[in-house]
Amino acid sequence: MISSKLPKMFYGGDYNPEQWDHETHLEDLRMFKLAGIDIATINVFSWALIQPDEVTYRFEELDQLINSLYENGVYVCLATSTAAHPAWMAKKYPDVLRVDADGRKRKFGGRHNSCPNSPTYRKYSEKIADKLAERYKDHPAVLVWHISNEYGGDCYCDNCEKAFRVYLKERYKTLDQLNQAWNTNFWGHTFYDWDEIVLPSNLSEHWGNNNSTFQGISLDYSRFNSDSMLDCYRLEYDAIKKHVPDSVVTTNLMGFFKQLDYFKWAKYMDIISWDSYPGLATPFSFTAMAHDLMRGLKDGQPFMLMEQTPSQQNWQPYNSLKRPGVMRLWSYQTIAHGADTVMFFQLRRSIGACEKYHGAVIEHVGHENTRVFREVAQLGKELQLLGDKTLDATVESKVAIVFDWDNWWAIEKSSGPTVALNYVDQIHKYYAAFFRRNIQVDIVSVDTDLSKYDIVLAPVLYMVKPGFAAKLEKFVEAGGTFLTTFFSGIVNESDLVTTGGYPGELRKLLGIWVEEIDALLPEQKNSIVLKDTYGDLQGKYECGMLCDLLHSEGAEVIAEYGDDFYQGMPVVTRNTFGQGEAWYVASDPEERFLDGLLGQLAAAKNIHPLLETPDGVEVSARTKDGKQYLFVMNHNATTQSYELGNGKAQDLLTDRELSGSVEIEGRGVQLLEMK
Amino acid sequence: MISSKLPKMFYGGDYNPEQWDHETHLEDLRMFKLAGIDIATINVFSWALIQPDEVTYRFEELDQLINSLYENGVYVCLATSTAAHPAWMAKKYPDVLRVDADGRKRKFGGRHNSCPNSPTYRKYSEKIADKLAERYKDHPAVLVWHISNEYGGDCYCDNCEKAFRVYLKERYKTLDQLNQAWNTNFWGHTFYDWDEIVLPSNLSEHWGNNNSTFQGISLDYSRFNSDSMLDCYRLEYDAIKKHVPDSVVTTNLMGFFKQLDYFKWAKYMDIISWDSYPGLATPFSFTAMAHDLMRGLKDGQPFMLMEQTPSQQNWQPYNSLKRPGVMRLWSYQTIAHGADTVMFFQLRRSIGACEKYHGAVIEHVGHENTRVFREVAQLGKELQLLGDKTLDATVESKVAIVFDWDNWWAIEKSSGPTVALNYVDQIHKYYAAFFRRNIQVDIVSVDTDLSKYDIVLAPVLYMVKPGFAAKLEKFVEAGGTFLTTFFSGIVNESDLVTTGGYPGELRKLLGIWVEEIDALLPEQKNSIVLKDTYGDLQGKYECGMLCDLLHSEGAEVIAEYGDDFYQGMPVVTRNTFGQGEAWYVASDPEERFLDGLLGQLAAAKNIHPLLETPDGVEVSARTKDGKQYLFVMNHNATTQSYELGNGKAQDLLTDRELSGSVEIEGRGVQLLEMK
Amino acid sequence: MISSKLPKMFYGGDYNPEQWDHETHLEDLRMFKLAGIDIATINVFSWALIQPDEVTYRFEELDQLINSLYENGVYVCLATSTAAHPAWMAKKYPDVLRVDADGRKRKFGGRHNSCPNSPTYRKYSEKIADKLAERYKDHPAVLVWHISNEYGGDCYCDNCEKAFRVYLKERYKTLDQLNQAWNTNFWGHTFYDWDEIVLPSNLSEHWGNNNSTFQGISLDYSRFNSDSMLDCYRLEYDAIKKHVPDSVVTTNLMGFFKQLDYFKWAKYMDIISWDSYPGLATPFSFTAMAHDLMRGLKDGQPFMLMEQTPSQQNWQPYNSLKRPGVMRLWSYQTIAHGADTVMFFQLRRSIGACEKYHGAVIEHVGHENTRVFREVAQLGKELQLLGDKTLDATVESKVAIVFDWDNWWAIEKSSGPTVALNYVDQIHKYYAAFFRRNIQVDIVSVDTDLSKYDIVLAPVLYMVKPGFAAKLEKFVEAGGTFLTTFFSGIVNESDLVTTGGYPGELRKLLGIWVEEIDALLPEQKNSIVLKDTYGDLQGKYECGMLCDLLHSEGAEVIAEYGDDFYQGMPVVTRNTFGQGEAWYVASDPEERFLDGLLGQLAAAKNIHPLLETPDGVEVSARTKDGKQYLFVMNHNATTQSYELGNGKAQDLLTDRELSGSVEIEGRGVQLLEMK
Repeated sequence: MISSKLPKMFYGGDYNPEQWDHETHLEDLRMFKLAGIDIATINVFSWALIQPDEVTYRFEELDQLINSLYENGVYVCLATSTAAHPAWMAKKYPDVLRVDADGRKRKFGGRHNSCPNSPTYRKYSEKIADKLAERYKDHPAVLVWHISNEYGGDCYCDNCEKAFRVYLKERYKTLDQLNQAWNTNFWGHTFYDWDEIVLPSNLSEHWGNNNSTFQGISLDYSRFNSDSMLDCYRLEYDAIKKHVPDSVVTTNLMGFFKQLDYFKWAKYMDIISWDSYPGLATPFSFTAMAHDLMRGLKDGQPFMLMEQTPSQQNWQPYNSLKRPGVMRLWSYQTIAHGADTVMFFQLRRSIGACEKYHGAVIEHVGHENTRVFREVAQLGKELQLLGDKTLDATVESKVAIVFDWDNWWAIEKSSGPTVALNYVDQIHKYYAAFFRRNIQVDIVSVDTDLSKYDIVLAPVLYMVKPGFAAKLEKFVEAGGTFLTTFFSGIVNESDLVTTGGYPGELRKLLGIWVEEIDALLPEQKNSIVLKDTYGDLQGKYECGMLCDLLHSEGAEVIAEYGDDFYQGMPVVTRNTFGQGEAWYVASDPEERFLDGLLGQLAAAKNIHPLLETPDGVEVSARTKDGKQYLFVMNHNATTQSYELGNGKAQDLLTDRELSGSVEIEGRGVQLLEMK
Repeated sequence: MISSKLPKMFYGGDYNPEQWDHETHLEDLRMFKLAGIDIATINVFSWALIQPDEVTYRFEELDQLINSLYENGVYVCLATSTAAHPAWMAKKYPDVLRVDADGRKRKFGGRHNSCPNSPTYRKYSEKIADKLAERYKDHPAVLVWHISNEYGGDCYCDNCEKAFRVYLKERYKTLDQLNQAWNTNFWGHTFYDWDEIVLPSNLSEHWGNNNSTFQGISLDYSRFNSDSMLDCYRLEYDAIKKHVPDSVVTTNLMGFFKQLDYFKWAKYMDIISWDSYPGLATPFSFTAMAHDLMRGLKDGQPFMLMEQTPSQQNWQPYNSLKRPGVMRLWSYQTIAHGADTVMFFQLRRSIGACEKYHGAVIEHVGHENTRVFREVAQLGKELQLLGDKTLDATVESKVAIVFDWDNWWAIEKSSGPTVALNYVDQIHKYYAAFFRRNIQVDIVSVDTDLSKYDIVLAPVLYMVKPGFAAKLEKFVEAGGTFLTTFFSGIVNESDLVTTGGYPGELRKLLGIWVEEIDALLPEQKNSIVLKDTYGDLQGKYECGMLCDLLHSEGAEVIAEYGDDFYQGMPVVTRNTFGQGEAWYVASDPEERFLDGLLGQLAAAKNIHPLLETPDGVEVSARTKDGKQYLFVMNHNATTQSYELGNGKAQDLLTDRELSGSVEIEGRGVQLLEMK
Repeated sequence: MISSKLPKMFYGGDYNPEQWDHETHLEDLRMFKLAGIDIATINVFSWALIQPDEVTYRFEELDQLINSLYENGVYVCLATSTAAHPAWMAKKYPDVLRVDADGRKRKFGGRHNSCPNSPTYRKYSEKIADKLAERYKDHPAVLVWHISNEYGGDCYCDNCEKAFRVYLKERYKTLDQLNQAWNTNFWGHTFYDWDEIVLPSNLSEHWGNNNSTFQGISLDYSRFNSDSMLDCYRLEYDAIKKHVPDSVVTTNLMGFFKQLDYFKWAKYMDIISWDSYPGLATPFSFTAMAHDLMRGLKDGQPFMLMEQTPSQQNWQPYNSLKRPGVMRLWSYQTIAHGADTVMFFQLRRSIGACEKYHGAVIEHVGHENTRVFREVAQLGKELQLLGDKTLDATVESKVAIVFDWDNWWAIEKSSGPTVALNYVDQIHKYYAAFFRRNIQVDIVSVDTDLSKYDIVLAPVLYMVKPGFAAKLEKFVEAGGTFLTTFFSGIVNESDLVTTGGYPGELRKLLGIWVEEIDALLPEQKNSIVLKDTYGDLQGKYECGMLCDLLHSEGAEVIAEYGDDFYQGMPVVTRNTFGQGEAWYVASDPEERFLDGLLGQLAAAKNIHPLLETPDGVEVSARTKDGKQYLFVMNHNATTQSYELGNGKAQDLLTDRELSGSVEIEGRGVQLLEMK
């Protein structure tokens, strides 16, 4: 069952009436109605207000607010307010304050400021969740529980250091195991006592942006830090569940956020929710991929779009307005990829502090006669018309791309072979080649059941976790197509190299041996020369960054290097393994090559585009009760057209019937129910 | 009365004979005579020398030095020596050492190193000023008192934190007021006890170069820090005045120096003095503007040029020599804009430590046969010939540009809409358009009486302080021309947004409503399209950075946007208000547009260039006893010519009569007395 | 006697079997034989293993390893393991942990992590050296003793601060002397008590990358820090010598490594050894120069190549493979410039921590069937054939370039005149002009006997140490040719300017007076205009960065500036002084000019190229027992040819006789014995 657990598609966003007077709140309610807003996330940063000291809790204003919203048809996503501790707590209990990677004790300020291993923070954050749940457990307004906010950051205090040692004892049992896992005989780091271990920080093993002299301890710190925050989350989660066992509990995630292993977190979330803030340079295929990751966290379950901006952001260097239609376009993109809510940060704009120039449904002018409000209200009306047609609908995909946080951490902590290697960008390159063809992709974890897919990609599968190589072999043996790339199969889960020849545990599956890995300067290139045509591929393509120097051990050589001293060595290989094929791409190719290669791999598996569309016109589908809803989204500013072929479709947004050659205006959206 | 309080135009500079032996001093005196030097700033960094411990003061050498100078016709600008505390003080009283924004306690070193709230520093700096004033109060050599040196920097120690809380109590009276002013309900920052407030630093609310999560506290810290240093200054000031009530007391300022609100400081200075060090890329119009700011600090009172380099600096990345004639040219520029002294750092060059490669009147070679010395001596002679002709002369202007430190701080602490917005650069853009036309400008504060001006500009008047909107309305009503730009009228003095529509309190005066603010990438541009010709303006001009999307509410639309989805919206408006006009420029235009616009605004007010000159030939005037002295300054390296028209003029520097077409050599200066 | 003290040319490298099991070690031994490896550097990072607490030492495994190697024909370079302290030591004795320049106490991690003034570190590092020497003093396997590893870094802890004061007392005797040397009257830094002095750090006098407000204290700190580490080295050195007086003791240096004054260190080293890791952008002439510096440290004594990578590195941003032939080519280059060993880091590649992607003789695959291993084995065979032909052979040179660490520190700590001045790059520019002509150069210190040279260059001889000017005068008087450049003769060894006119103590020798120093922006240029032809030089050449404005005081003007206000002033001068000539190059010229100038200076002294070869074909020679061995090395990727003229030669690597026009393949090496 992959239900989102939401009774309808809600529309609304973050709401902070504690910054305003009562008249303003009444005015807000009036405008919410105009915009079709029926959910408000409240209490996100109210800890200091509702708990002025250790023993006092004041819920009167919150009671009134929830009642007032409910009476006006607005449901509540109730936050626990623990994303920023009160000033009094920081003053009296300094253990809540973090120590940064440079060893500096923080002072009160900002947000995301609590040490996740602070006894004080854990005690009082659990307690406030408990108090809130106890008080509002039966309130019909409360739809979703929202723990803390955008968890993140790290801490290097003594409490964390002690907790880290406990974590390590649980993980390794003995120091011998730990010394081996971290290869401490290198540089004489042998530990004889758990207490000799210190947190890896800029004062010990780290330097620069992401460098470590000992990847083993650094990797374990990343795991520990993610788990420490998850522990905090779970304390609050359990406190709520104690009172409201059937509640829907979430916290808002942030897409490809490096610090937290969201696959691990997802297990403890009833529904995934996330905050989508594409930057100025974010490709729309990347946004789509982030949505697919969020959907993938709970195996395809629809998610909440918890936050997006109605127009500009404030933390970009240059905060452009969303052009007319863009907010609507991106909202539908979110729905197309699996969202069952559309929510904004924020409903009314602050007048002070650092987010006052962030977009809001109700701007500083305070009335509804703005472009932004009109666009919000228009979308609100459309969503009401759409009703629950797409609610709980699934996104069907025969292609999966494996994504793994441990792998991400390990790759980017690596010293050598190149600083140019960015794991997420590599994932996106392969994702985008499918995206451009309107072929849907699931982003999956190494724990996902692969048997339902025809094609599984795992670009830069540097770390091979226990059992995963066997799982892949089984997948391919059964007829699946698998593809991986350079710098794969190198290490185990402790970041220790698998000796005996790269790609280690994947060597048999891929039928190759990688002897050397060459790193190219940014301006250097090599080339991929096809031995024969393959699908549309023929001739020569550019590649670069890393070039594996490899030997086939049974794999068919599809293409060879065209230059340098390893000219003629294999660069793309295909190994028949059981009923399936295992591909290896030994360098970083140009986009055109991937379009050809992945297109052909899909075609060979009878996987076809949802529709053929011009550049920038995305098609994504949700399926429910046997019906497929095609979202056609024109990311271009100009009108485009595409062919429906022999089919006919109903555009649910205009209720027009479409057939043959269809025009779609710049930044337009069509929601097609195929006939 | 705007007298500079100086009896003549003095010529000299910083002099540190404590670094040399007596013979060298005698040699210096000989050369001072050759160069016409009659003032020396001494004792600037002698604290450690004259006070070797808490109770001992040694003035013998200073006595001798002052006498020796005086006997040789050199007056004294007597510094109090408190810009660098003695090493013994740092060792015994660590409270004098600052804590930086990263929470790091400084150790002894550098200069500008004392915490402004250190009890020890305040006690001993006041005491040494007192001792000096007591000792030299009657010495005829002492012309000016020079407190400390180039105040600046900041501190985050516990003493400062405590003082900050006291400052806040005085400012806000209650925590409710403070919580409201800082909008602490945002991100749950509510304070219940004054002691919960910590200094905003990189350990609390700040990060990066100039970023804050809470602008309110950061803005108050900027005010507090400026005031803390001013308190130190005033302690010394009062100590001197106690002994010498009619003394002339100053401290050397630094032009557009962000940390200190010089308008506030100026109230406690008898004369403004400043150190002019244009960088390699500083436009000469910027230097002129800085002089005008210094003159504006005390409502037009002539100021001292306390320091400039005879040739190179040492702290630039590349320290070019001043080309032949440039030192003279820039000295006259300073006089033209209001200086009544010309002084150098330094008279003799150090042989050790970080300024040994900084230019000096007497170079390391030690004799007078150098290009630099010859140029200094030539100027010295010219100034002697000039005598007191321009002493106390005024600079007359009908145009004022409003400059405000609080506004500067607030704009550049803003999170969004763009990092590209630099307040001083915006001021300079408007200033430069007048400068290029040889139209004189006053730089004024929000407290200045505007009634004497015909045109008042306030570019980026982001913060509107109490009463200032009304003052502007009154100015325009009475017939004045006012102009402001995008991102104006947004906040009050607490950086809280004025709701109800931008530009807030200026909306009525300007007759517009700004609905949205678009931020453009550096490479993005929009255009200004004139609806009709206006003066020389017609057709299309480039604009960028920020684009206000605005609606006229009565203002005449002079120009519209030419591009993007807001094409056709107003970009330049003029609102008739009473007898005057209020202009709004909604984006950042190219220079050519401002030349046209401001030229026409001036022409409409019958404000005309002092002279029409080619590019790079500046004309500025000082007026005394009804006579106007025109400084014609050719910043080009090549000879230029201009027309005197029907007038005739005497060049006071050559005593030649000029008329008709006049040639001026590269880097030449002419001082015209019009006939 | 300049013998390297090695009985043969050894081949091998760093070996860390403590990271592996016994079977792997046996496999290693097998492969060592295949590759001709006969030396292994061991125990480099084993401190924690062999000393698990204060009183326990475990040498059993080391015993076995040494025996095992010896029995298999592999000698030992025995490291003392003190480059990284054990974790237990850091925990129990925090004084071993450094404090960084920002005042942050380090925690356990990394390497090079011990405070050089830590009593604990000094005690236990001396003790372990003592224990090792006692145990292995008679072991025939032990060929060389290798103290610590790549000394470097700095520390700012209280122990260092106290030791610094002691160092200063010894250096200056009185505070008066110190105050004068540091010119503390500048900025009021006068010290009255030694304890007032604090280490110069980012908390006191330093900021940014390499900036200081007081060069005097900073320079002394550089000396002190280098000496502190040298003291640590000497404690271990003496501990070894106590047991093995005739041992060969070294530590591995790092070429042009700024922090340590290697000329001072070399006095306490029996043989120089160093680690050669050219970066991606390192010119091969620079590598050659570094070898020459290493050879120069002990007046021409052959040195050990202690480390080089067989293929890639891991700490470059982009870690390219060494192309086929390059490892061999660079190995011979090292030998050609004076090495008597060829050794690698590392013999077997680690599987964990930050060097696992660094090249090794035995790669992760673990067998010998790799390109890298084959190249290593081929070279091993060649070296065995070569035998001791070049062992202890000298490199003969009539040209010396003076290099001085104090000068390096002082130049680059200077505030002004330009940040563009890089001392080592300037040395390299002059070196490279000889290198391109196959004229051999010695890199010498200011203490070297110059009488054996015909030409001595001292580019940017900013600091002139006591007696050195007289030494240069004597050298020129006797007929030598001396050349120096801009920014020379400026300061004494305390970085105090020599007054009376630049170039100070060199003024008489050079016959010039430098009046001013102009710094040019990177894009600015001036030109050198020859007055007559000089050798091949004629016409105009580009120059820049710094331009001295100088006057001849007897020197002949060879060339003048072509531009700017100092057009026509001398830029290149030659002063006849006694029997010799002293040249001055007043700006930074283009390469082409230096080729012409230095070529002509050499020709005038009858110094001729070893051979005339095309660009990129290097020739260097070693001489032994009257025979000259010419190493011809083609750094190009393509075949080149050169003329042997009438001579005939035997290529010792192929045993072919060569004459007339000789071809040399891309990256090829020929070792010619001339007949």
